[in-house]
Amino acid sequence: MDEIEPFIQRMAAVPRSGLHNPFKHPERYVMLGEVCGAAAREMFKPEVTDYFIRLIQRVAPKSYAQAGGEIKAVRTWLQDFSGNNVRMLAESQGLPGDHVGQSTVGYRMPFGGVSVITPFNFPLEICGIQSLSAVFMGNQCTTKVDWKVAIVMEQFLRMLHHVGLPKTDIDFIYCDGPVFNEVLLRGDAKMTLFTGSQRIADKLAVDLKGKVKLEDAGFDWKILGPDVMDVDYVAWQSDHDAYGFAGQKCSAQSMLFMHENWTKPDVDIVGRLGRLAGQRSLKELTNCPVLTWPTDKFLAHMNRVLAIPGASLAFGGKELADHTVPPQYGAVEPTAVRIPIEALEDPPSFEVATVELFGPFQVLVDYKEGQQSKVIEAINRMPNHLTAGIVSNNPRFINEVLANSITGTTYAGARARTTGAPVQHWFGPSGDVRSGGMKVVNSLMEW
Amino acid sequence: MDEIEPFIQRMAAVPRSGLHNPFKHPERYVMLGEVCGAAAREMFKPEVTDYFIRLIQRVAPKSYAQAGGEIKAVRTWLQDFSGNNVRMLAESQGLPGDHVGQSTVGYRMPFGGVSVITPFNFPLEICGIQSLSAVFMGNQCTTKVDWKVAIVMEQFLRMLHHVGLPKTDIDFIYCDGPVFNEVLLRGDAKMTLFTGSQRIADKLAVDLKGKVKLEDAGFDWKILGPDVMDVDYVAWQSDHDAYGFAGQKCSAQSMLFMHENWTKPDVDIVGRLGRLAGQRSLKELTNCPVLTWPTDKFLAHMNRVLAIPGASLAFGGKELADHTVPPQYGAVEPTAVRIPIEALEDPPSFEVATVELFGPFQVLVDYKEGQQSKVIEAINRMPNHLTAGIVSNNPRFINEVLANSITGTTYAGARARTTGAPVQHWFGPSGDVRSGGMKVVNSLMEW
Amino acid sequence: MDEIEPFIQRMAAVPRSGLHNPFKHPERYVMLGEVCGAAAREMFKPEVTDYFIRLIQRVAPKSYAQAGGEIKAVRTWLQDFSGNNVRMLAESQGLPGDHVGQSTVGYRMPFGGVSVITPFNFPLEICGIQSLSAVFMGNQCTTKVDWKVAIVMEQFLRMLHHVGLPKTDIDFIYCDGPVFNEVLLRGDAKMTLFTGSQRIADKLAVDLKGKVKLEDAGFDWKILGPDVMDVDYVAWQSDHDAYGFAGQKCSAQSMLFMHENWTKPDVDIVGRLGRLAGQRSLKELTNCPVLTWPTDKFLAHMNRVLAIPGASLAFGGKELADHTVPPQYGAVEPTAVRIPIEALEDPPSFEVATVELFGPFQVLVDYKEGQQSKVIEAINRMPNHLTAGIVSNNPRFINEVLANSITGTTYAGARARTTGAPVQHWFGPSGDVRSGGMKVVNSLMEW
Amino acid sequence: MDEIEPFIQRMAAVPRSGLHNPFKHPERYVMLGEVCGAAAREMFKPEVTDYFIRLIQRVAPKSYAQAGGEIKAVRTWLQDFSGNNVRMLAESQGLPGDHVGQSTVGYRMPFGGVSVITPFNFPLEICGIQSLSAVFMGNQCTTKVDWKVAIVMEQFLRMLHHVGLPKTDIDFIYCDGPVFNEVLLRGDAKMTLFTGSQRIADKLAVDLKGKVKLEDAGFDWKILGPDVMDVDYVAWQSDHDAYGFAGQKCSAQSMLFMHENWTKPDVDIVGRLGRLAGQRSLKELTNCPVLTWPTDKFLAHMNRVLAIPGASLAFGGKELADHTVPPQYGAVEPTAVRIPIEALEDPPSFEVATVELFGPFQVLVDYKEGQQSKVIEAINRMPNHLTAGIVSNNPRFINEVLANSITGTTYAGARARTTGAPVQHWFGPSGDVRSGGMKVVNSLMEW
Repeated sequence: MDEIEPFIQRMAAVPRSGLHNPFKHPERYVMLGEVCGAAAREMFKPEVTDYFIRLIQRVAPKSYAQAGGEIKAVRTWLQDFSGNNVRMLAESQGLPGDHVGQSTVGYRMPFGGVSVITPFNFPLEICGIQSLSAVFMGNQCTTKVDWKVAIVMEQFLRMLHHVGLPKTDIDFIYCDGPVFNEVLLRGDAKMTLFTGSQRIADKLAVDLKGKVKLEDAGFDWKILGPDVMDVDYVAWQSDHDAYGFAGQKCSAQSMLFMHENWTKPDVDIVGRLGRLAGQRSLKELTNCPVLTWPTDKFLAHMNRVLAIPGASLAFGGKELADHTVPPQYGAVEPTAVRIPIEALEDPPSFEVATVELFGPFQVLVDYKEGQQSKVIEAINRMPNHLTAGIVSNNPRFINEVLANSITGTTYAGARARTTGAPVQHWFGPSGDVRSGGMKVVNSLMEW
Repeated sequence: MDEIEPFIQRMAAVPRSGLHNPFKHPERYVMLGEVCGAAAREMFKPEVTDYFIRLIQRVAPKSYAQAGGEIKAVRTWLQDFSGNNVRMLAESQGLPGDHVGQSTVGYRMPFGGVSVITPFNFPLEICGIQSLSAVFMGNQCTTKVDWKVAIVMEQFLRMLHHVGLPKTDIDFIYCDGPVFNEVLLRGDAKMTLFTGSQRIADKLAVDLKGKVKLEDAGFDWKILGPDVMDVDYVAWQSDHDAYGFAGQKCSAQSMLFMHENWTKPDVDIVGRLGRLAGQRSLKELTNCPVLTWPTDKFLAHMNRVLAIPGASLAFGGKELADHTVPPQYGAVEPTAVRIPIEALEDPPSFEVATVELFGPFQVLVDYKEGQQSKVIEAINRMPNHLTAGIVSNNPRFINEVLANSITGTTYAGARARTTGAPVQHWFGPSGDVRSGGMKVVNSLMEW
Repeated sequence: MDEIEPFIQRMAAVPRSGLHNPFKHPERYVMLGEVCGAAAREMFKPEVTDYFIRLIQRVAPKSYAQAGGEIKAVRTWLQDFSGNNVRMLAESQGLPGDHVGQSTVGYRMPFGGVSVITPFNFPLEICGIQSLSAVFMGNQCTTKVDWKVAIVMEQFLRMLHHVGLPKTDIDFIYCDGPVFNEVLLRGDAKMTLFTGSQRIADKLAVDLKGKVKLEDAGFDWKILGPDVMDVDYVAWQSDHDAYGFAGQKCSAQSMLFMHENWTKPDVDIVGRLGRLAGQRSLKELTNCPVLTWPTDKFLAHMNRVLAIPGASLAFGGKELADHTVPPQYGAVEPTAVRIPIEALEDPPSFEVATVELFGPFQVLVDYKEGQQSKVIEAINRMPNHLTAGIVSNNPRFINEVLANSITGTTYAGARARTTGAPVQHWFGPSGDVRSGGMKVVNSLMEW
Repeated sequence: MDEIEPFIQRMAAVPRSGLHNPFKHPERYVMLGEVCGAAAREMFKPEVTDYFIRLIQRVAPKSYAQAGGEIKAVRTWLQDFSGNNVRMLAESQGLPGDHVGQSTVGYRMPFGGVSVITPFNFPLEICGIQSLSAVFMGNQCTTKVDWKVAIVMEQFLRMLHHVGLPKTDIDFIYCDGPVFNEVLLRGDAKMTLFTGSQRIADKLAVDLKGKVKLEDAGFDWKILGPDVMDVDYVAWQSDHDAYGFAGQKCSAQSMLFMHENWTKPDVDIVGRLGRLAGQRSLKELTNCPVLTWPTDKFLAHMNRVLAIPGASLAFGGKELADHTVPPQYGAVEPTAVRIPIEALEDPPSFEVATVELFGPFQVLVDYKEGQQSKVIEAINRMPNHLTAGIVSNNPRFINEVLANSITGTTYAGARARTTGAPVQHWFGPSGDVRSGGMKVVNSLMEW
C-alpha cells in the first residue's frame, strides 16, 4: 500500500482528453496499428510462441494445446488491429446541418486514466486484449492481473515495449484487490473494466459510482431440444464444455437440460457423457487441479445438490486417486448430478442447483415433451447471462428459446456449445447495462 | 409511499427479455412506428399544437414561441421514428463463421423493466422522447417527471394511448425523489436514465449499483477566439445562450472567455451584450422567473463572484422592479460579472466562479493573446461537459481547443452557440462512461 | 420528338454537383423530409387514399385491395423518410489522418441530371419511390412512366407540389421509349434507373455507356424441400405468387420445383394448386386481363412447353369463357404445365421452359430425393435473379440452396413466397454489377 | 490469340455464386485473412522488400524511395486485411420482420468470374490490391497488367502462392488489349475493374454492356485561395504534385489556379515553382523518362498551349540535354505554361489547356479577387474528376469550392496536395455511376 503513490499520481495526471483523440496526436492511431502488426509478427516466431505457452503452463494447469490456444487468439487479434485498423476504430459520422456552413460530426473520445482488472484463468488473452483496447482509443491504462499469473502479462508487455509501444501507455501493477481499490479511488479512475465474480463487480460499481464495465461470472446452460441428431458430436462437445480445463472457464457448461428423446436407451446421452468424463486424467492434463474450490468444499457442495428431492449421482463424485495436488486446491473426478426439472420449481433447491462451482461439475436436468416452459422459467431465474447453448436444428424451437432468454452469447444449432468465444464475435453477458445490451447468436447448424 | 406497490409489482414482473425483441413480438416494432406516425399527425393539428403549448405555459414560464419549440422538436422526432424507423433501430449484424453452417449475429436486446427521470425545464421534450425510446427497444418504462410540470407528460401519454400505444407500455408516476428511489430499488429497475443534477446522479449510480445512464448538469463555456468577425451575430447568439428562458437550460452559457481582440473599443463585445440584456423584460417573457434560485440566493452568489480579485460587475445585478414573482422564485436582471483569466488559477476563486447558477447569470473572462493554454486549463478543471462554443473560423485554433477538451456537444465556428441541440445530433455529456464517450462537433462556419 | 428540347436543356443544365449536396443547400435535405412527412399525412386522408386507388384501377386491372396495397406501401415509405430521415441518408464517415490537422471524410454526392424509367404494373409505387429517391440525394430527375398508366404518377407529382416539393425537382415526360432515348443521349443523363425487360436494359447499358442501374425482369423459382409442413399455407401462397394480378409482377412465381414428398397422394400439392386456381375469376378481379401477352400468343407458348418430352397440362390452359377483354390483351385461365427435372437438362427444352411469360402461367417441375443438384443446376442457368422461394424449415437444406444460388431476394422457410417485397428490405436482382451484389434472405420460418 | 482458350474456359466456368459466399466455404474468408497476414510478414523481410523495389525499378523509371512507397502501401494494405478482416467485409445486416419467424438479412455476394485491368505506372500497387479485393468477396479474378511491367505482379502472385493463396483464385494473363477484350466477351466477365484512359473505359463499358467499374484518368487541378500562408510548403508540394515521377500519375497536378495574392512579388509562387523544377534531374531520378509521350509530341502540345491568347512559358519547355532516353520515350524539362483565367472561357482554348499530358507538364492559371466563379466554371467543364487540391484555411472559401465541384478525392487546407492517396481513404473519380458517387475530402489544415 505504501508503494502505490506513483500509480495514483500517473492515473490522476492523464488529461481527460486522453493521450490522443481524433484531434490530438492522431499519429498514435497509426503507431498503435504498427505495434499490433509488429507484435503479431513477433508472436508468429516459433520460439516466442513456445516461450509464452510454457510461461502460461508454469502458472496455470493447462495443456500445451490449451495454452497455445491463448497465443493463437491473441496473435489473430493483434493482426485484426494491425495496419490501419486501430485508426478505423476512430471513425466519425457526420450529417449536413440546417443551412450552409453547418454540419454535425460525432467523434469517439477517450476517458483519460482507466483500468483493467482480470482473473487467473486466461493469463494472457483477457488482460492483453483488454489493456490494448483501452489504449487504442486514447486512454492510459493501469492493468491489474491476478498476481498468481501476472508474470505472463508482464512478459507480454515487455514484448510490446520491444516492438514500439511507449512505456507510459500501460501501467502494470502487482497487488491484491483492496490495494487496487485504493488506487482506483484516489487516482479517480474514469472507467474500470472488470472481469471476475459478480460480488466484486457489484462492489466496484458502488465504489466507483457506476464508472465500470463488467464481464461477470457465468452459470451457463445448454438445452438439448426434441430433435435428436449428431449424437456423438453433441456428447463430445458437452463433455468439452463442462470439463475442459476442469470447468474453470466463465463459459463452462454448468447445467444441461435434456429432452426425454435424448435419454432414451438408444441415445443414452448420460451414459455417453459418463464414459467420456471417465477418460479424463490428470496425467494427460485432460483433468487438472481446481484453483478456487478445494476437494472438501467441492464434495460438500455436491452433496447439497444430491440432497435435492429426486437427485442422483450420474457419474464422478470422488476425489482423484494417487494425486499430488496440494490441499488448498481441488482434485476431483469430472462430476454430474442429475435432477428432474420439477425440482427447480422449489426456490431453495433452485438456489443450490445454480451455484456456480468453478470446477468440473454440472447438473443434468431431465425434462419431458410439453415441459419447455419450465425450462425457460428456470433459465430466466438465473442471475448470470454469459453463454448458453441450444442443441437443435428446428428453427421454431430455437426461436422460442432465443425469444425468452437474454444470454449474451448463445450458440444455437446441432453443434451448439457453451465455450469457445470465436474471435469474430462479441463476448459478454447481456441484460446488464454495465456490460452490453447485446445478444450474439452463434448458429452452428452443420458439422 | 403507500401507493407504490402496483408500480413495483409491474416493474419487477417485466421479463428480462422484454416486451419484445428481435425474436419475440417483432410486430411491436412496426406498431410503434405506426404510433409515432399517428402521434406526429395528431401533433400537426393546429388545435393540438396550441393545446400543448398553452399547457406547457401553465407550468413553465416560457413564451408561446419557446413552448412551441418543444412541440416542434417532439413532432419532428416522432416523424423520425415513424414508418419502419423503429424497426430499423433493431438492426442486427452478422458474420460468416469458420465453416459451413456457422454464422454469428449480434442483436440489440432490451433490459426489461426500466425507468426515466426528468426535470422541470422541458416538460414535454425530454421525458416524451426518452420514455418512448425506452419502449422502442422492448423495455417497459416507468416515467417520473418533476411533479410541478408532470401534467404535460400525462396529457402526451393520453394522446399516445389515443393513437394506439398499449396502456401497459409506459407507467406514469406522480411522486417525489425518495419515493421513486424506493420503487427503483424494490422493483429492481434494470436501467434508469436520469436527467438532472450531478449530486442526485451520483446517488442513483450508487443506489442502483451503476445501472444508470446520466445526462447531468452543465456549466457551459464559450470561447471567443482571436479572429473577430460577424460581431452582431455573435453578440446576439451569446445573449440568447446566456439569458434565453432566464438561463434555465442545462446548455445555457455560464462562462464566456473573451480574446482581447473582442474587447477592443471598436468591437466592445461586453457593451453589446449589456445592451442586448437590457432589452429583456418579464412582460415580453424575454426574461422570466427563476424557479430554483430565489432572488436573495442569486444576489448572494453574485456577490461571492464579485469578491474574486479583479472582478467587476459588467451589467445587471439587481432585482427586477415592479414584479409580482412570488418570493420562493428569483426575479433578477440578466447579469454578468467580469474577471481576468488569472483569477481562475486560484482554486477557491475557480470554485466560486464555476458554480452552475440555474438562472440568468454568466461570468465573462478576459484573456490575452498567448494565454490560450490558461483557457484550456480552466475548461478542463470544470466537472461538467455538456455543451461548449468555440467562436472562430480559424481551423488551427478550433482544433487546438477540440483536441484538449471533452465537452459532449461542442459548437465550433463563427456562429458557435451553446444552446440549441438540433434534432439531428446526439446530445449529452462526454467523458463519463455513464453517459457517452462521444463528442459531437457542430460546425457553424457561415451565416 | 419535336417537343423534347426543353427536357434536354433542363437535364443538361443541372450542375454535376447537383441541386444540393452536403456542402450546398443542405437545407434541402430538411425540406425534402418535410415534404415526405406532409405527403404521408395527405395520403392518410381517406379521400386521397380512395382517389389514388380508383385512379390506379382506371389504368390497371387491379382489385381495390391490390391497388390499395400500392398506396399503403408508398405512404409507409414516405413516413420512412419524413423528419430528418432524408438528411440521415447523407451521413458521412471520417477518419483521423496521419498527423494533426489531417482528417479524411467521405461524402455522398449526387450525379446531376438523372432519369427514372418505370413499367405499367405498379403505376404509383415504383416510379414514385424511385423518383423521390433520386431527388433526395441532390439529383434532378426526369421521370418516364409507361404512358398507359402515367396519369397516376402525374397526379402524385401534383400532390407533392401541393405539399411543398419544388416544381423544378422532377421533370415528368409523356413519351415512348425511342423518344426518351433521345432525351437521355442529348441531355447527357448522368445516371438512369431502369425497371423493365432485360432486352431494353442491355440496350440502355450500351447506349448510355454503362451509366445505368437496372432492375430487370424475373423468371422466379420456388423449391418445395423434402420436409413437408403447413401444406394449406404453402398451397395458398404458391397460388398467390403465381397468379396474383394474373402473374404480371416481376416477382411472380414462374417455376415450382416439387420434391416427391409434396406430390404423394396424401399431400397432392398439384391438386391443391389446381383447385385454388380454379376459384379465380375475372369478376372478382382474382384473375384479370394480361396486358402484354394476347391469348393466342399465350396459348402458343403453352403448347411449346407442352411439347417438351414428359410434359403434361396440370390445370388451366384455356381461354376464359364469356369475357369482354379486347383481343390485344390476354384472357386466359391460370395455367400450369408439369415436367420432370430431367427435361431441363436438354438446352432447347430449358430455353422454352424458362421464358418469362408475363401472365398467369407457371411450370411445375418434379424432382426426387437425390436430385437436388439437378435443381441447383437448373436455377443457375436462368439468366434472371430477382426473387426466389425455398420452402423448408431444414437449415441444412436451406443453406445448400442459398450457397449455390444468387437470387437478389430469396424467401426461405416454411412460409417462403416469391412476391411481397416488404418495405423493410432491399429488393432487386443480384449477381449483376448494374444492379446490386447483394442477396437478401427473408426468413419465414413460422406462421 | 490462339492461347486464350483456357482463360476463357476458366472464367466462364466459375459459378455465379462464386468460389465462396456467406453460405459457401466461409472458411475461405479466414484463409484469405491468413494469406494476407503471411504475405505482409513476407514483405516485411528486408530481402523481399529489396527484391520488389529493384524489380519495379527494372520496368519503371522510379527512384528507390518511390518504388519503396509501393511496397510499403501494399504491405500496410495486406495488414489491413489480415486476421479476421476479410471476414469482416462479409458483414450482413438484418432486421426483424412483421411477425414471429420472419426476419430479413442482406448479404454481400460475389459475381463469379471477373477481371482487373491495370496500367504501367504502379506495377505492384494497383493490380495487387485490386486483384486480391476481387478474390476476398468470392470472385475468381483474371488479371491483365500492362505487359511492360507485368513481371512485378507475376512475382507478387508467386509469393502469394508461396504463403497459401490457392493457385486457382487468380488467373494471370500476358497479352494486349484487343486479345483481352476477346477473353472478357467470350468468358462472359461478370465485372471488370479498369484503371486507365477514358477512351478505353468507355469502349469497355459498351462492349461489356455496363458491367464495369472504372477509375479513369485525371486532369487534376489545384486552387491557391486568397489566404496566403505556409508558402515554402505549398511550393514544395506543388512541385511534387506536378513533377513527381515526371507527372506520370493519374493524380498529378495538371492545372494550378493562382489567386493574385500568390503572384505578388513578395510571394512569387511562380518563381518558387520554377526554381524547384530546375533542381530536378534525370541522374537523381527526380526527373525521368516519359513513357507514353515522346519528346516531339510533348513539345508540340506545349506549343499548342502557348498559342492560347495571353499564354507564356513560365519555365522548362526544352528537351533534356545529354540524355540517353530512347526516342520512343520523352525526355523533357519540368514545364509550365501560364495563362489568364479569361482564356479558359474560349472553348477551343479550354480544350487545348485541359488535355491530360501524362508527363511533367502543368498549366498555371492567374485569377483575381472576384473571379472565383470563373474558376469554378472551369473546373466543372473538365470531364475527369479524380483528385483536386484547395489550398486555403478559410472554411468559407473551401466550402464554396467543395459545394460546386465533384472531384472524387479533394485535398483541402493549407497543406492541400493532389497526389498521395493515403491508405486510409477511398480513392477514385466521383460523379460517375461507373465508379463511385462519393467525394472524399482530405483536410490538411496544419503542418
